[in-house]
Amino acid sequence: MPSYRIVVLPGDGIGPEVISQAVRVLETISTSSPEISLQLESHDFGGCAIDKHGDPLPPSTLQACQEADAILMGSIGGPKWGVDAKIRPEAGLLKLRKALGLYANIRPANFASDSLLDASPIKPELVKGVDMIVIRELIGGLYFGARQELGASAEQPDTAWDTMIYSIPEVQRITRVAARIALAANPPLEIHSIDKANVLAASRLWRKVVTETLTNEFPQLKFDHHLVDSAAMLIVANPRKLNGVILTENLFGDILSDQSSVIPGSLGLLPSASLAGAPSAPSTPDFKPTSGIYEPIHGSAPDIAGQGIANPIGTILSAAMLLRYSFGLEKPAKAIEDAVRKVLDTGVRTKDLGGEAGSEEIGDLIVKEL
Amino acid sequence: MPSYRIVVLPGDGIGPEVISQAVRVLETISTSSPEISLQLESHDFGGCAIDKHGDPLPPSTLQACQEADAILMGSIGGPKWGVDAKIRPEAGLLKLRKALGLYANIRPANFASDSLLDASPIKPELVKGVDMIVIRELIGGLYFGARQELGASAEQPDTAWDTMIYSIPEVQRITRVAARIALAANPPLEIHSIDKANVLAASRLWRKVVTETLTNEFPQLKFDHHLVDSAAMLIVANPRKLNGVILTENLFGDILSDQSSVIPGSLGLLPSASLAGAPSAPSTPDFKPTSGIYEPIHGSAPDIAGQGIANPIGTILSAAMLLRYSFGLEKPAKAIEDAVRKVLDTGVRTKDLGGEAGSEEIGDLIVKEL
Ligand SMILES: CC(C)[C@H](C(=O)O)[C@@H](O)C(=O)O
Ligand SMILES: CC(C)[C@H](C(=O)O)[C@@H](O)C(=O)O
Repeated sequence: MPSYRIVVLPGDGIGPEVISQAVRVLETISTSSPEISLQLESHDFGGCAIDKHGDPLPPSTLQACQEADAILMGSIGGPKWGVDAKIRPEAGLLKLRKALGLYANIRPANFASDSLLDASPIKPELVKGVDMIVIRELIGGLYFGARQELGASAEQPDTAWDTMIYSIPEVQRITRVAARIALAANPPLEIHSIDKANVLAASRLWRKVVTETLTNEFPQLKFDHHLVDSAAMLIVANPRKLNGVILTENLFGDILSDQSSVIPGSLGLLPSASLAGAPSAPSTPDFKPTSGIYEPIHGSAPDIAGQGIANPIGTILSAAMLLRYSFGLEKPAKAIEDAVRKVLDTGVRTKDLGGEAGSEEIGDLIVKEL
Repeated sequence: MPSYRIVVLPGDGIGPEVISQAVRVLETISTSSPEISLQLESHDFGGCAIDKHGDPLPPSTLQACQEADAILMGSIGGPKWGVDAKIRPEAGLLKLRKALGLYANIRPANFASDSLLDASPIKPELVKGVDMIVIRELIGGLYFGARQELGASAEQPDTAWDTMIYSIPEVQRITRVAARIALAANPPLEIHSIDKANVLAASRLWRKVVTETLTNEFPQLKFDHHLVDSAAMLIVANPRKLNGVILTENLFGDILSDQSSVIPGSLGLLPSASLAGAPSAPSTPDFKPTSGIYEPIHGSAPDIAGQGIANPIGTILSAAMLLRYSFGLEKPAKAIEDAVRKVLDTGVRTKDLGGEAGSEEIGDLIVKEL
């Protein structure tokens, strides 16, 4: 019987509350499926780790993450460790992404249930059927290129700069992940690559490598290119046009994935995965990461922390992604997603969606469905 | 009697069609106001200039623009001069912006008439009252920083990079423009500065300089800071929260201004200004640019060019901005805006808004109102 080690990073604010419901769901899967054994262990990460250890990513947490089969995370940060603080939770997150080599961030934006169409800020006739997966390069570009802070250089005392840099292999590997995920669907998804090739050299490299990789290695896939400014318009004006896979670099992905996550009406519903490891041979549609962090896309929402009213669904769906991507366990992953949809179809809603159900109640109902 | 020289750059696609209606409006103002004399002259720019002169910005056009009091532009580009072409219209645009020092791009996103609320892709209750002005730094950052194309360096043969660089004076001057525009409204507008200060050094400089400039020079103004990813969410989920001035750097401004321009339902309705010249003393609310390009925000729409159905309102409202900002002629500027609103209130619509009126008909009606 395969046994998997999952490191759990509850984090700050509502993190521990949403995590505890997802942990219940994973434990239900583990005890009810004789062929699956999941070992869960929690570690300090983020603001709470700054408070306890003076470091958002203590060495013991990093080591546990490196040894884990997969990582489930809540949310980190809060005003206590705000912009002016010397040590910030975000630094730990960026360091962890880089240390684990998590270059592929995967964020679906779709409706867990059609009963949620009305929750969208965009008109229902425009968003019905929206089904996008943003695949964002996560450890390159402006985030990790060389930079110079204001005041750091005697020759340029009044400037600051960052570098958007990409190499051919970096773009190849994220393109292959996008292709693998496109091929896993039936029929395969269309790929929309986003760049600013009319201005940026890094985007011209991006466009060239995406085109060559897809044309040579995945001739069966359809793809096109959009400029980031017009993609930002399309996501609001006609989002179905970008159905399929949205493939883009780190900063554009940060912006566009957040923008598209507003479509389903509540950030509380959406999961994400950040993966490491080269996909195997280009012809096999499967993609087995060597490491992965799974987390809801929402923040730590300190204003509602401790009240038991946070929506745990984004975290629960992240646990489903974990089973699917890191362990290849499609059946229980699908079972969790179906259970979530069924519960939402009954009309139960947490506060973010105008309802009154608490985190625990949603957890109960989903566990019962399973 | 002050006489003003306006250079007109009709450009490509629907450019000449929308320009000709705006020119009629300006000529009406000029002939009906004894105290205003406008001299208009047309020059080649964009794709048509590539075809005729092999250069999107021929020296004669550049010189005319440098000598003009203001510039009115249509739209440039088209598939004929696409991504793979050696000489591209966009290069001319970037060169013109830089040559004229047009560092301040100003793009309002609001409803020219409440009768258009239903045209928005976002629900009317969320967009009613949306009134944002995006002020984008236009000749700095990633657009004009040092870059290296793929293949250009023997040491780094497989990489390409661009630099996002800002200096203190660059951020000061655009902040002062934003403050001037905020102060010109009664009550003054709130300023929302957008950056990615949790990751980028250039954004940390941006945030520091914006904060210091506004605090020291404009203590009467209210302002806050948003991260670009969360601003991209807000513009869709709750756009009124960003009412007022959105102040941001070049690339973020490119993305966010396009994104917010979708709110009013048709790109055909929205004007823009790109301005040069330091505002005078910080205490005077007026801002008199030394040079300015005024243009609709839509593209050249080659698919509908030559049919006389393009919406000329964005260009006509750009002409109003020209009178206001470059010449300080508030009265005729306001008159044009009022005429546009009245015409829209009667329900007449061009095709982009689901109607049947042609460009000429809209021009007629607005001229008649004047
Ligand atoms: C916290 C921040 C550094 C991070 C990012 O920009 O990557 C966040 O916005 C995200 O998208 O995970
Ligand atoms: C054409 C392109 C270079 C330009 C830009 O990115 O600045 C355009 O998108 C704009 O916003 O005016």
